[in-house]
Amino acid sequence: MSTAPKKNAPPKNAPAKEAGSAPLFDRVTLIGIGLIGSSLSHAMRRAGLAGHIAGHARSERTRAKALELGLVQSIHDDPASAVRDADLVIICSPVGSYAEIGAAIRDHLKPGAILSDVGSVKQAVIRDLGPNLPDGVHLVPGHPIAGTEHSGPESGFATLFDGRWCILTPPPGTDAAAVEKMIRFWQACGSQVEVMEAGHHDKTLAITSHLPHLIAYTIVGTVADLEEATKSEVIKFSASGFRDFTRIAASDPVMWRDVFLNNRDAVLEMLGRFAEDLTALQRAIRWGEGDKLEALFTRTRAIRRGIIDAKQA
Amino acid sequence: MSTAPKKNAPPKNAPAKEAGSAPLFDRVTLIGIGLIGSSLSHAMRRAGLAGHIAGHARSERTRAKALELGLVQSIHDDPASAVRDADLVIICSPVGSYAEIGAAIRDHLKPGAILSDVGSVKQAVIRDLGPNLPDGVHLVPGHPIAGTEHSGPESGFATLFDGRWCILTPPPGTDAAAVEKMIRFWQACGSQVEVMEAGHHDKTLAITSHLPHLIAYTIVGTVADLEEATKSEVIKFSASGFRDFTRIAASDPVMWRDVFLNNRDAVLEMLGRFAEDLTALQRAIRWGEGDKLEALFTRTRAIRRGIIDAKQA
Repeated sequence: MSTAPKKNAPPKNAPAKEAGSAPLFDRVTLIGIGLIGSSLSHAMRRAGLAGHIAGHARSERTRAKALELGLVQSIHDDPASAVRDADLVIICSPVGSYAEIGAAIRDHLKPGAILSDVGSVKQAVIRDLGPNLPDGVHLVPGHPIAGTEHSGPESGFATLFDGRWCILTPPPGTDAAAVEKMIRFWQACGSQVEVMEAGHHDKTLAITSHLPHLIAYTIVGTVADLEEATKSEVIKFSASGFRDFTRIAASDPVMWRDVFLNNRDAVLEMLGRFAEDLTALQRAIRWGEGDKLEALFTRTRAIRRGIIDAKQA
Repeated sequence: MSTAPKKNAPPKNAPAKEAGSAPLFDRVTLIGIGLIGSSLSHAMRRAGLAGHIAGHARSERTRAKALELGLVQSIHDDPASAVRDADLVIICSPVGSYAEIGAAIRDHLKPGAILSDVGSVKQAVIRDLGPNLPDGVHLVPGHPIAGTEHSGPESGFATLFDGRWCILTPPPGTDAAAVEKMIRFWQACGSQVEVMEAGHHDKTLAITSHLPHLIAYTIVGTVADLEEATKSEVIKFSASGFRDFTRIAASDPVMWRDVFLNNRDAVLEMLGRFAEDLTALQRAIRWGEGDKLEALFTRTRAIRRGIIDAKQA
């Protein structure tokens, strides 16, 4: 993830907490309390969305920190006890951990509960969490398009989702009321919400997010392999372009490993197109085909204008 | 170029104009008045570095605009008359134009004048400008590591170079006093100055700047080739990583065409390494080698820390 809104910016479209009104959920459980989990806690508390926030994290340090920072009102060593009586369970850990978490919590979910997540891939989430869910538990996967290059429970903040998109990918036949409730939840966290099919999400994000991260990781890796003297000069003069890639390539390694392993086909398809285009450009440089270069470099400006017009710049 | 300092930020290390002191140069000529040329005019006037600023631009519109904005005190249709009596001539046009400009101005340069430039490649500049210079004219090529994605005479501002590096690459045997004067010039424009050999500059910038721009242009081009419906979704969700590439890929097309044509060997060498690394990563994704992915994604974080420690983040 690479979007870093100003921490102190006023919320763009987050409704203020309504005094005296009942929270949207009596009890919410966060499984995993890193950047997104902790930011969700801040955003939920800002909007008064949960009567009680329970948490589970694998590491002792994160559990202690989450309590210390007031991110959760109760903390649990095992996921099964964390989800007990929860009306909403949000998995905020790397997507590679979902199958194990699903197996651990499945039989402990409250009837009528909503099971959601914040993972960057969505077909794999439905594959790993969907089967064997008890009747009356509603799976509504989600993906907030927001993040920073920082990780851990201390890195979260309430405004992370303000003005950003959140994509929900409920499988066909999902209870409409549950989907509606999750739309209200994310809007109250400051987001704009879009509902789409999981496969379509994965294809779109392969281009907008997964391929850019892959490329950034690659070029920073290429530099990491250079000899020390060269590397220190690259760092010194990094403001000329390279720097922008390093921020993207500082994102959480385990999270991104799991993204690439779980959206393999869509990522390889886009990577194939990119590699072809790169080879064509390489050939144009080798043969001194200035017209081809200039034509491409002119065409790409239109995309930038589109992003500025869409107010996503 | 991709560095965008705040336009209204106070200058970090630009010395104030000393009241009553003589300017460093009586007459400075700018050949080309785009982002860098116009910013140089602003920076020179801020620091009182030139008694008179003359200018040449190829297009009638740019010449009129430069006068209207007060960027130059005299404007000239042809480069030869623009450089007459100048103590310093700075070429600020795409590097592909240097050979022609060099031929046009060569016989009109004042004895003792310094000929410099701001191009992103340096060996080609010495190749195109160096031969046949009159005795007593000093070639001191330069490259300010600063820029934005905007172009044209209206896009310049005085603080563009503040706190940024400027690299000078005088050929062996260049007059030391001329080099010293250009160091003082760039420091007065707000920059930190580094002197290095032209070939070393070109290798270093191939990694820090040329390859990142090439990759950004490629991925934005890959997206530009997608069908319209997909493209509009990519723009909508671009904050998830893609957006950062579009800013880099909005830089001036002709300038960048000339960079790649004139630093071919160094760019192809770095591009070759990058392509190998990308292929290795592609293979790791295809075969589900999570350990390899995680190891790379962890290693790249160290480079980011280096940039933060070097205060270039």
